[in-house]
Amino acid sequence: MNKEDSLEEKTLSSTYIYQGKIISLRQDKAKLPDGRETVREIVEHPGAVVVLALTDDNKVVMVRQFRKPVDEVLWELPAGKVEPGEDLKNCALRELEEETGYYSRKIKKLITFFSTPGFCNEKLTLFLAEDLEEKNKNEDTDEFIEVELIKPNEALKLVQENIIKDAKTIIGILYLVSSKNSIEY
Amino acid sequence: MNKEDSLEEKTLSSTYIYQGKIISLRQDKAKLPDGRETVREIVEHPGAVVVLALTDDNKVVMVRQFRKPVDEVLWELPAGKVEPGEDLKNCALRELEEETGYYSRKIKKLITFFSTPGFCNEKLTLFLAEDLEEKNKNEDTDEFIEVELIKPNEALKLVQENIIKDAKTIIGILYLVSSKNSIEY
Repeated sequence: MNKEDSLEEKTLSSTYIYQGKIISLRQDKAKLPDGRETVREIVEHPGAVVVLALTDDNKVVMVRQFRKPVDEVLWELPAGKVEPGEDLKNCALRELEEETGYYSRKIKKLITFFSTPGFCNEKLTLFLAEDLEEKNKNEDTDEFIEVELIKPNEALKLVQENIIKDAKTIIGILYLVSSKNSIEY
Repeated sequence: MNKEDSLEEKTLSSTYIYQGKIISLRQDKAKLPDGRETVREIVEHPGAVVVLALTDDNKVVMVRQFRKPVDEVLWELPAGKVEPGEDLKNCALRELEEETGYYSRKIKKLITFFSTPGFCNEKLTLFLAEDLEEKNKNEDTDEFIEVELIKPNEALKLVQENIIKDAKTIIGILYLVSSKNSIEY
């Protein structure tokens, strides 16, 4: 038995409780490494992109939007869920344009991460978008969004003062600031 | 109408679909700022703590564990959900000790954040734990965990190489590295 095997759980059965518009919920009966059984509650999500977009004068394109689950208006990076079959880079370009009106001519993937892997499979991919052109803002039908341009150092301050509270946004800002040289910012 | 009001949604009704061991799922009918109605799927979570624990020789205490929702063994900071009525600092001390065997004599809150506020209310509080004493590891009954000690610069490399994929852990490591002076590391 190698190290990974000694940690892994085998699925014995899966039961769907809910299959919704965006998320689904299932219960998995799983066999633990020591042979005992447990039940895991698992939220399924189609995955999402998050976009760290930098203007030519080196400002971060941020959005402010109300989030019903937490009942607060949050500072975030532009982001959105992946449509079935959609290429992640196209998804990032689409969400950036829908939410902010900016089109990017230079976009690249930075990292992927799981938002909360204890109970959910949501995987986020962070993109760096540069060489921006301002086009028309074309909001999703049920999104109300304000766009703000912030210098990286000001965004870092908003993270350190805990005014920015969205995990994917904290990751994007701290990644930018801690990678100053390697991502040519 | 002020700026915040122009973004907020009012709840018209809430219906529970599932009330589970750790998470619950509800549907909220909400009124959008323009008067139209929409349905929001919301996962409720009791909240959690995440612990950036530094040994006296300046290593980060990390754990490796299998996460059923993503079917992978992940590198993480010690973390866990808050029990009903539990003080967050006590929760952080308890989770650190349960998962790693370390007790901290100096612990302080750094920031709070939402893991995925588009559909879930999970709020995480990040603690810095220092002045560690090694006690006995006392695992939760269904957790299988390996402990690893990593230098901050090595942890940063694991983030940049995308080997660390857990959002709360990326936040803890990048926060540490980007706040070198202010948190006396």
